Amino acid sequence: MTNLKKIYNTKSPVLEEMGFNDDNYVIIAGPCAIEDRESLLAYAKLLKDNNIHYMRAGAFKPRTSPYDFQGLGYLGLNMLKEIRELTGIKVVSEIVNADDVKKFEETVDIIQVGTRNAQNFELLKALGKTTTPVLLKRGFGNTIDEWLSAAEYILASGNPNVILCERGLKSIDGNSHNILDLGGAILVKKLTKLPVIIDPSHASKIYETVPELTWAGLTAGLNGALIEIHFNPDASISDSAQALRTTKFSGLLEKARKISAVLDKKIY
Amino acid sequence: MTNLKKIYNTKSPVLEEMGFNDDNYVIIAGPCAIEDRESLLAYAKLLKDNNIHYMRAGAFKPRTSPYDFQGLGYLGLNMLKEIRELTGIKVVSEIVNADDVKKFEETVDIIQVGTRNAQNFELLKALGKTTTPVLLKRGFGNTIDEWLSAAEYILASGNPNVILCERGLKSIDGNSHNILDLGGAILVKKLTKLPVIIDPSHASKIYETVPELTWAGLTAGLNGALIEIHFNPDASISDSAQALRTTKFSGLLEKARKISAVLDKKIY
Amino acid sequence: MTNLKKIYNTKSPVLEEMGFNDDNYVIIAGPCAIEDRESLLAYAKLLKDNNIHYMRAGAFKPRTSPYDFQGLGYLGLNMLKEIRELTGIKVVSEIVNADDVKKFEETVDIIQVGTRNAQNFELLKALGKTTTPVLLKRGFGNTIDEWLSAAEYILASGNPNVILCERGLKSIDGNSHNILDLGGAILVKKLTKLPVIIDPSHASKIYETVPELTWAGLTAGLNGALIEIHFNPDASISDSAQALRTTKFSGLLEKARKISAVLDKKIY
Amino acid sequence: MTNLKKIYNTKSPVLEEMGFNDDNYVIIAGPCAIEDRESLLAYAKLLKDNNIHYMRAGAFKPRTSPYDFQGLGYLGLNMLKEIRELTGIKVVSEIVNADDVKKFEETVDIIQVGTRNAQNFELLKALGKTTTPVLLKRGFGNTIDEWLSAAEYILASGNPNVILCERGLKSIDGNSHNILDLGGAILVKKLTKLPVIIDPSHASKIYETVPELTWAGLTAGLNGALIEIHFNPDASISDSAQALRTTKFSGLLEKARKISAVLDKKIY
Repeated sequence: MTNLKKIYNTKSPVLEEMGFNDDNYVIIAGPCAIEDRESLLAYAKLLKDNNIHYMRAGAFKPRTSPYDFQGLGYLGLNMLKEIRELTGIKVVSEIVNADDVKKFEETVDIIQVGTRNAQNFELLKALGKTTTPVLLKRGFGNTIDEWLSAAEYILASGNPNVILCERGLKSIDGNSHNILDLGGAILVKKLTKLPVIIDPSHASKIYETVPELTWAGLTAGLNGALIEIHFNPDASISDSAQALRTTKFSGLLEKARKISAVLDKKIY
Repeated sequence: MTNLKKIYNTKSPVLEEMGFNDDNYVIIAGPCAIEDRESLLAYAKLLKDNNIHYMRAGAFKPRTSPYDFQGLGYLGLNMLKEIRELTGIKVVSEIVNADDVKKFEETVDIIQVGTRNAQNFELLKALGKTTTPVLLKRGFGNTIDEWLSAAEYILASGNPNVILCERGLKSIDGNSHNILDLGGAILVKKLTKLPVIIDPSHASKIYETVPELTWAGLTAGLNGALIEIHFNPDASISDSAQALRTTKFSGLLEKARKISAVLDKKIY
Repeated sequence: MTNLKKIYNTKSPVLEEMGFNDDNYVIIAGPCAIEDRESLLAYAKLLKDNNIHYMRAGAFKPRTSPYDFQGLGYLGLNMLKEIRELTGIKVVSEIVNADDVKKFEETVDIIQVGTRNAQNFELLKALGKTTTPVLLKRGFGNTIDEWLSAAEYILASGNPNVILCERGLKSIDGNSHNILDLGGAILVKKLTKLPVIIDPSHASKIYETVPELTWAGLTAGLNGALIEIHFNPDASISDSAQALRTTKFSGLLEKARKISAVLDKKIY
Repeated sequence: MTNLKKIYNTKSPVLEEMGFNDDNYVIIAGPCAIEDRESLLAYAKLLKDNNIHYMRAGAFKPRTSPYDFQGLGYLGLNMLKEIRELTGIKVVSEIVNADDVKKFEETVDIIQVGTRNAQNFELLKALGKTTTPVLLKRGFGNTIDEWLSAAEYILASGNPNVILCERGLKSIDGNSHNILDLGGAILVKKLTKLPVIIDPSHASKIYETVPELTWAGLTAGLNGALIEIHFNPDASISDSAQALRTTKFSGLLEKARKISAVLDKKIY
């Protein structure tokens, strides 16, 4: 095992204050990519109406092919800022370039690091220089040790506000779905004092298993779930198969609230 | 995808009658291997006292090394039969040889096929000739398609009473733990009409994450969990790290019962 | 690592005598499955004409689906015996049932254990009771330690004549091809005194990379290669994509002989 | 499969001129990390004395732990430039930050992208804006499709000079070694017109199997190998287990030259 100095003992009062504590199961929902101002506003309102505090929406999209939609970029980021101020929703969005840290600090509540950049150490070091919280996804080919070490890069550079997110490992069955390492997430939750969440959407690759995995994460004692939703998945620019139709999202929340009651937790 | 004719539509009224239906979450607990008559009786009593109906205990142990304890064999099987008659507990035990089907029919309630024999088609065909229920583990390197195809071998040979069990895939992090493919199990539950259960013990390799994975499987809508327990794990002949101490087992059950209440299910 | 007592030091003079020694690179070629007597005879003649000593041909085929062609069984085995006596070709064929050991002893020169039975310990123990050589494939999900332990089961039961065969691991890119663990095979060659060969056909899943992998195994110091060939791959009953057309097989041999010359080896 | 427009047809006359063509097998050897000026000069002389044209040496080291040696940085890069001018050796070194492209253009002959940045698309796009050749490693968890798509990012941004390097995939046996996907490299060699090389050192994790894999890559028709060597591996700052002692390196070259002769190739 790699020598790690901070990850086992670091707490983040900032994140606890923001809702990421053991009294809550935080749902961060929204579209894969920001598509336009109007729909973004509608997602924010839907979430607020459901007492959900966090919206996810990508402005920069690291896609396997250079010819796929790469996101609206700064234009999208500015939309996000506007909607956030307008509605009070808190926002999470993915960064892909270390030079953009300042811009993200001014625009979002939580900066996301995607699975492909999970060991982009230059980016992690740059995020260690801010105090804006970082949602760090585990690389789809990373061991638990590598995942914790990636977080350690941020902590060692000075930022204790890290959310650890398990999003599924590639496996021998990778073409059908990723394998959510729920056991690994539980283990990391027990080993550390930072919030640990799951991304059932990228793990599933299909929306059909997203609700069950979300509930499973809640029952397993984790701190939240990052969920892709869409008003009309078939018309989605990206990740259309795994986006949960908004009409099904309320059913997901309802059952989550029912379960959370016996666990003395709140859906946040 | 392989052409499969029966797995998507086969129901098993026999298994439903035996408790494997959507009203229950069946806990099958017990030691990895049968160690002696006395302890086996104690496990059976403990389970009965906790209103648990099924005990697991291995008479034949397929171990990686030929020099590791291989189980008590027929002697163990006879003990199992005696304890079963004495206490009324139902028993599950692993078969490793097609020639033993008749002996198992007379001795156990459910015949288990282990992960290493998940594509031992001669064994699967032989189990298709009995009507005793079969608990079929997914191979640790098998895709969902291969898992369903293995079940199809049993169904095609005439036995519809198959319980599908996900026990964790090997992965890039295999030395620390297996990755329970909970998403895959949920998917198979949705695709088929047969009971689907999980084996959190072999998935975890350590007992610490067993309770959470057990609860997660319940919340995810699956039909049960196969759990290794031990009065004194440190003294266990095999699988000592992943066996849950019996004193912790009652805590696992208590919380499972609490959760099951809001899901309109019973811990069976 | 598992405690292993024999695998690191066992030598097989029988196999060395049969050509599996460091002076040779043994090519074992033939169709995936025995299709009929006539074609089997033609393959045997082709191999003899090319100074190749071993033919592979499956009588029992463990297929993922129960509805796929399962081989000609004993009928095929008898054909194999006849062709072997008629032409003097040596034959390798796969066993799937421990009860068939005696029948195989009388029929083939080398008994093959397939990847799905790589940890079918009952079969391995039964093969430890014969002295007929065993070609043991590594399981597609087995570590090197598990591979060596599987061989140890045969050795511990009394049969020292084991050929170790690496045939490709499943991986995150499993749907396109298996990953031939050439490095692992080299390591096992260095760690043991038994012959180590590769199966470039099952590793590749497509015939196009079979010749290069065959040559690579030769240059890497291994003892041979198991190759699927076919007179007309498009008409093959099974494994049609990975079977090398016989007209391309002579090109493979020609270059292999050229390379073997500078390595002081012979293509056998 | 991802839609790719350039990777299948792009040729690089620049790289062919630099030795990366089908007449040669290019050996790029050197220490994992630049340790000091004196040893770097000694490696360069050793390579020149052996008629080897390329030296590898890392100035920036992306290490799993933030507390491990991270390389000499710009200081190392300047050393590399000096030694290159002094001895005429050509140099390859790894970039980790898109802002450093200009600095690397002035310092090295080939810019390396490491496995952890294999899908750091911002870095790849920045490297598409230079014409300095790029040695692109495949991510240890990337499919062939993802590997080709990563190269496409560089090509689509304007730089056709890409060397594709297979360095081993993580697998179920990942703790002992990575699995060099030689078959995948052969396939990519057949599918594209760009040079394809292997990294036997990172694949092996131990030096013992490095020579055999190097020879295997040569026989398989690939264009070269990237090899870690060290005067005294035990004293190496990083990767000490997989570095080949320089005294063994000459044996590797000697046999490689012997083999290359019958393949009408030169060790370059």
